[in-house]
Amino acid sequence: MSNIAILAGDGIGPEVMIEAKKVLACIADKFQITINTTDYDVGGAAIDNHGNALPPATLAGCEQADAILFGSVGGPKWANLPPTEQPERCALLGLRGHFDLFCNMRPATLQPALASLSTLRSDISAQGFDVLVIRELTGDIYFGEPKGRRGEGDEETGFDSMFYSRQEIKRIAHLAFQAAKKRNNKVTSVDKANVLATSQLWRQVVEEVASEYPEIDYEHLYVDNAAMQLVRDPNQFDVMLCPNLFGDILSDICAMITGSMGLLPSASLNAEGFGMYEPAGGSAPDIAGQGIANPIAQILSAALMLRYSLDQDKAAQIIEQAVTSALDNRILTADLLPEDSKNQAKTTSEVGDYICQFI
Amino acid sequence: MSNIAILAGDGIGPEVMIEAKKVLACIADKFQITINTTDYDVGGAAIDNHGNALPPATLAGCEQADAILFGSVGGPKWANLPPTEQPERCALLGLRGHFDLFCNMRPATLQPALASLSTLRSDISAQGFDVLVIRELTGDIYFGEPKGRRGEGDEETGFDSMFYSRQEIKRIAHLAFQAAKKRNNKVTSVDKANVLATSQLWRQVVEEVASEYPEIDYEHLYVDNAAMQLVRDPNQFDVMLCPNLFGDILSDICAMITGSMGLLPSASLNAEGFGMYEPAGGSAPDIAGQGIANPIAQILSAALMLRYSLDQDKAAQIIEQAVTSALDNRILTADLLPEDSKNQAKTTSEVGDYICQFI
Ligand SMILES: CC(C)[C@H](C(=O)O)[C@@H](O)C(=O)O
Ligand SMILES: CC(C)[C@H](C(=O)O)[C@@H](O)C(=O)O
Repeated sequence: MSNIAILAGDGIGPEVMIEAKKVLACIADKFQITINTTDYDVGGAAIDNHGNALPPATLAGCEQADAILFGSVGGPKWANLPPTEQPERCALLGLRGHFDLFCNMRPATLQPALASLSTLRSDISAQGFDVLVIRELTGDIYFGEPKGRRGEGDEETGFDSMFYSRQEIKRIAHLAFQAAKKRNNKVTSVDKANVLATSQLWRQVVEEVASEYPEIDYEHLYVDNAAMQLVRDPNQFDVMLCPNLFGDILSDICAMITGSMGLLPSASLNAEGFGMYEPAGGSAPDIAGQGIANPIAQILSAALMLRYSLDQDKAAQIIEQAVTSALDNRILTADLLPEDSKNQAKTTSEVGDYICQFI
Repeated sequence: MSNIAILAGDGIGPEVMIEAKKVLACIADKFQITINTTDYDVGGAAIDNHGNALPPATLAGCEQADAILFGSVGGPKWANLPPTEQPERCALLGLRGHFDLFCNMRPATLQPALASLSTLRSDISAQGFDVLVIRELTGDIYFGEPKGRRGEGDEETGFDSMFYSRQEIKRIAHLAFQAAKKRNNKVTSVDKANVLATSQLWRQVVEEVASEYPEIDYEHLYVDNAAMQLVRDPNQFDVMLCPNLFGDILSDICAMITGSMGLLPSASLNAEGFGMYEPAGGSAPDIAGQGIANPIAQILSAALMLRYSLDQDKAAQIIEQAVTSALDNRILTADLLPEDSKNQAKTTSEVGDYICQFI
């Protein structure tokens, strides 16, 4: 029996989560397993109901669960709160910090059938790509102290601190090399070692770890160069290993160049395999409540959850195959259709239903 | 009479610099002005000759000059030196720091005639774009102290410090709004204010400066979103105002999506209008010495020098028109030609000669 904390959040979060729950119910049925889901408030909805984007009851619920399935948070209503109270920062950094979810995995695949959606030139997108960004998620300049302000008038200064310890680098690097082993045997480590002392240690430790995986092709790139290479020839990459801040930027570039962000799941794991699973895209308040949002990223996030936290790899595969079948059969929401055929779009729940049927 | 310090550097630097000097000689002739150029060693060449990528004699020569025309530095020969001794870091950060060149301007324009070179999808590149990245160049995490390492074993930690003062933000922000006024009246400020205290001050000060320019359209974007927007729809941007680290990444993305990095100049200025001018691309050691490198970015860098440091706007315009004419007449080096017509390529010196003739 597995207990899942469901944190649907704001915007399109709740409506795509309904489809992910449908799919989990089908899987439970097919595999004769019990998956209990319990809903908790998070993000803007939680601010409205409890005055806090990550209320204690939500955290307590997550602690009791085997995994967290997260929707998306944020919207214009809460955009003017002070930064530390805003839904995205408060909920996401709160959960990452509390559960030590140091390993963020964001696969970005350009599906051949959808190559025309890619924002890259057709001869580049025709090559396709399949990149897994492994982003360190609890260190770097995100949580480093001191951070704040000091001084007055023109001398007033804002400051932040970047840190990585050898141990933090080692654990994420091993995960990247292990992932590459199951994929295409290449790791590209990203840093800014020509400027940052933190990056110099990063590079050194990653090199040490690389030497334990002689069968894996290994290279390191400066972050500015990595960003350029991604928009020139993403097909050269397999696993990209990134510190937190650079991973934030590069994983979003990877997602955008697929042209189909609505398909991309992500996983954030800790050392015990406990994890939080969420779509790569945001809460998309502009299309929320219309039943047109793409539920696939949320559904594939549930698949990753089955794989990494619930040890149900077979079930994860079945979901992934059902999604592929939906795409092959052009069961597509509007975001995946070109301007001139948006009228063929399926609704959020039609896509969910199709995937369930196919399971 | 103007004195220019010429720092040609490594790789293709010397050969493209010859063309820029040719063009400066034509301009001096046409406008009846005296432009003295003096060559100094920099980068790998200076390491080889003097054991230091930025020798005291070079710095002294630059101090005497009215402006610095810089080529490019670095190459495999020096890639394994310790980071602080490497040509790129040592020469570039050294010059920026020494002359307080806090304002880096990197224009990236997609020329309609060359739209097919862009790495973006054809319907996106067909829109064209004209983005000016204004990057703060002497603050942020580049120079912030403390930076280094401490601790031992698995606890060994690398660290860096990010800082911006109100005064530093203000001076670069004013330059961005002034630049927008002469262009398309829009400033996009980039930060990570949902995570960084430095960015929160950045955003606040930029907002204050923005209120002094009510006629300019102003927005702020998180860096991850800005990177995504650039590869989705660069045409939405006019001036992008960036802190040092984010500007490093975003200006390189801008350059890459033009598909014609060999055309892009840059300027790095201090408060007195003293500046250093250099191509956006690197030293390209793989094609150095073959006479095939594109000299246009170097030539346009000389044009920017005439405009910003030598108060010769008319001369700058003449050079820019001559370059446009060269492109229109398909006087193109190989980098600007599609695979199947590389045999029509002009050499480095043919392009320089054409531009001189046209002046
Ligand atoms: C909301 C923000 C704090 C967060 C981050 O920067 O990590 C987001 O951009 C992400 O990538 O999940
Ligand atoms: C070489 C390096 C220090 C430099 C930087 O990061 O500023 C380079 O990437 C640039 O953009 O000029």
